[in-house]
Amino acid sequence: MARRESTPEAPGSRALIVDLVRSLGPVSRVELVEATGLTQPAVSMIVRKLLDDAVIVEVGSAPSSGGKPRRLLDINERAVVGVGVQMGFESVTFVATNPSGGVLARQGLPGAQDDPPEAVVRRLADSYQAFIAASGFDVREIVGVTVAVPGPLAPDREGILEAPALPGWTGFALRAELDSLIDAPVLVDNDAGAAALGEFWSRGVSRYSTFGAIYVGTGVGAGVVIDGALFRGASSNAGELGHVSLDPTGPLCVCGNRGCLEVLAGPRAVVSSARNDPRIGDLALSDDPRHVLLDFEEISRAAIAGHQGASDLVTLSADRFAAAALTLTNLFDLDQLVLTGPALLVSGALYVRHVRDVLQSTALARRAHPVIVDISANPLDSAAIGAASLALQRSLAPGHGPAITDTSSRPQHAKGDPHLAGRR
Amino acid sequence: MARRESTPEAPGSRALIVDLVRSLGPVSRVELVEATGLTQPAVSMIVRKLLDDAVIVEVGSAPSSGGKPRRLLDINERAVVGVGVQMGFESVTFVATNPSGGVLARQGLPGAQDDPPEAVVRRLADSYQAFIAASGFDVREIVGVTVAVPGPLAPDREGILEAPALPGWTGFALRAELDSLIDAPVLVDNDAGAAALGEFWSRGVSRYSTFGAIYVGTGVGAGVVIDGALFRGASSNAGELGHVSLDPTGPLCVCGNRGCLEVLAGPRAVVSSARNDPRIGDLALSDDPRHVLLDFEEISRAAIAGHQGASDLVTLSADRFAAAALTLTNLFDLDQLVLTGPALLVSGALYVRHVRDVLQSTALARRAHPVIVDISANPLDSAAIGAASLALQRSLAPGHGPAITDTSSRPQHAKGDPHLAGRR
Repeated sequence: MARRESTPEAPGSRALIVDLVRSLGPVSRVELVEATGLTQPAVSMIVRKLLDDAVIVEVGSAPSSGGKPRRLLDINERAVVGVGVQMGFESVTFVATNPSGGVLARQGLPGAQDDPPEAVVRRLADSYQAFIAASGFDVREIVGVTVAVPGPLAPDREGILEAPALPGWTGFALRAELDSLIDAPVLVDNDAGAAALGEFWSRGVSRYSTFGAIYVGTGVGAGVVIDGALFRGASSNAGELGHVSLDPTGPLCVCGNRGCLEVLAGPRAVVSSARNDPRIGDLALSDDPRHVLLDFEEISRAAIAGHQGASDLVTLSADRFAAAALTLTNLFDLDQLVLTGPALLVSGALYVRHVRDVLQSTALARRAHPVIVDISANPLDSAAIGAASLALQRSLAPGHGPAITDTSSRPQHAKGDPHLAGRR
Repeated sequence: MARRESTPEAPGSRALIVDLVRSLGPVSRVELVEATGLTQPAVSMIVRKLLDDAVIVEVGSAPSSGGKPRRLLDINERAVVGVGVQMGFESVTFVATNPSGGVLARQGLPGAQDDPPEAVVRRLADSYQAFIAASGFDVREIVGVTVAVPGPLAPDREGILEAPALPGWTGFALRAELDSLIDAPVLVDNDAGAAALGEFWSRGVSRYSTFGAIYVGTGVGAGVVIDGALFRGASSNAGELGHVSLDPTGPLCVCGNRGCLEVLAGPRAVVSSARNDPRIGDLALSDDPRHVLLDFEEISRAAIAGHQGASDLVTLSADRFAAAALTLTNLFDLDQLVLTGPALLVSGALYVRHVRDVLQSTALARRAHPVIVDISANPLDSAAIGAASLALQRSLAPGHGPAITDTSSRPQHAKGDPHLAGRR
């Protein structure tokens, strides 16, 4: 996972400058020197190259304390376009974003449902062509397409390892199949991770923040951004918050463990409880139990409108999310956390309040620093927007972007027998 | 936290080469070119500089497929010495290690007990001088001293924020006080984090591994090594595994939460249960309830010898450690985990077995990759050895070392109001 390493030609420094312009811009060269610790000539050289490549632009001047005014730099929002696809059972969403995370175009489509993966991918390819044509982009502007899917992911992010929401997709080579059908490089990524990077990117969060996002779709996940890059772990499956056990005597989860957040308090669990709760009989739940997001939205709306049974269910779920958020915060020492995902479109504020209360009173590092907790500005599309950001980051700031990790080519041998513990 | 960033002068590349020689050595220049993706001239230039600085040495030749034999490089174990101090209530341990983690000298001392921090620090300074003198090191070889303490840590790692095991130390400027008394640079770090880096370093673990360590002293913590550097989070307080809640209805923990691993199953909890368990009345527990490690060792010994009451207590504890290890693994997507810490000196194998079983059957990414679970070769001293490794890493591979994070000087402003979510 050599995500953030540099060569002597220093793409790491280029990525650092791009990322600081993203989070601080408009910003002057002098401020970049201060923020990076790089020398003034080094910053000037990198900035000149980025201006030549049209990745950044000069956007005016700021008064200087003596001497000539300092010219300000910002990301060139017109440079390139990234495309993100959020793929779920109930819906598929295409978005195109500019390099600061602004949405240029959006298209909602029917979900994967029970259709065979081959048919869904052909539909995705056709929809992609129609989406690009309708949006009027020059195809040369499009740096890549990232498909955000529920995890866990297969090795090398070729597809889905096993997702309860999309059971037929295990072993299907989603990335390669779609890549062969469209004329832009395709990546596959975890929806929660994509959403985390997208929130980090479009909010202008500082790379010195330890930033997390909890993503609530049909399933539950999380992503953490470290040093400006999505943290991936050994197999791009870090952040599986839905499988944090909160109760060892709780119900059995698909993962094999008991009392996981997802099986205890995720949208599917809340909808399932509602179906068995006589107090919720008056709500109009759908006939198909797999329309989890639709039904969860209905229950959330009722809870907010004061329906006691619905409110009890949603509050209990929010309490459990707060407990899991505390674990995530204590293990990563987060200083900023965003809640997002389509399930939080209606009830997000309630979940945020519970999470914030628990972190304020029990996060272990609370006396060292606060943890800022927010709701996404666009919980419905955040995985799609984040997926587009991943495509853009890979193109604009390749030094720490989401390059596919080819672990097979990495030297894997350790010295000697680890049980002998080296030369002690 | 710009731990792994590079300047155009590329200390990031230097750190990368040092770290690869550490984990792969003896290794040839050709293998370093393959492993890094750096150009052959770049690797040659960095290697030449590292040879000049005596950080690495040539250790012989390997046959080559045609052409002249390839000379092999390894870390120069005689270059420098790092000193680690493991500070606890019951004991203090000094170790000096060479750059591959080999222990050159060790000294055990009485613990901090209830003595005032000022007195303990004077004792540490005196002991340090005596330790160095007795070991016969040239003081010019000593690159630094790292003191490993129970966390959480105070901002900028100046001391302890609040540790139940050392209650009088909150607010005491441990780093500055000791630094003023001895003639080597002093750092303070979390014992669990130090142990993680030490295990990573001395086992020759690949930097492409996502490596975790669970540390069991009087309290419980964890550390994760990412891209060859200890992951710190926002305030160097990442990895607080002792405060992962496993049971929302469990006993109240000092952190304010309920049912945390530490209060439910840590050594203090096990000893406390044993004191109240009539079946354990035959064991010789100490008079002072704060001698947790001594008593836990007694109980562990009895459990392994077949004492039913003791075995039940330790097994229950190990089950809960396995549940917490699963959460750590699912959130960081670990592929390697080591159990260590003085409390595991006797019962380590039992804990490892429980953790391994649970990870094999329920880790979410188990179908993508295995998780290797091991016991430390030296659980008693691993925080001290790791602390020495932190001092060495900072000196030898500063590009990703544990530099003090001066967050106050970092630009903290984000663009606009985060609630407006940028330019969407």
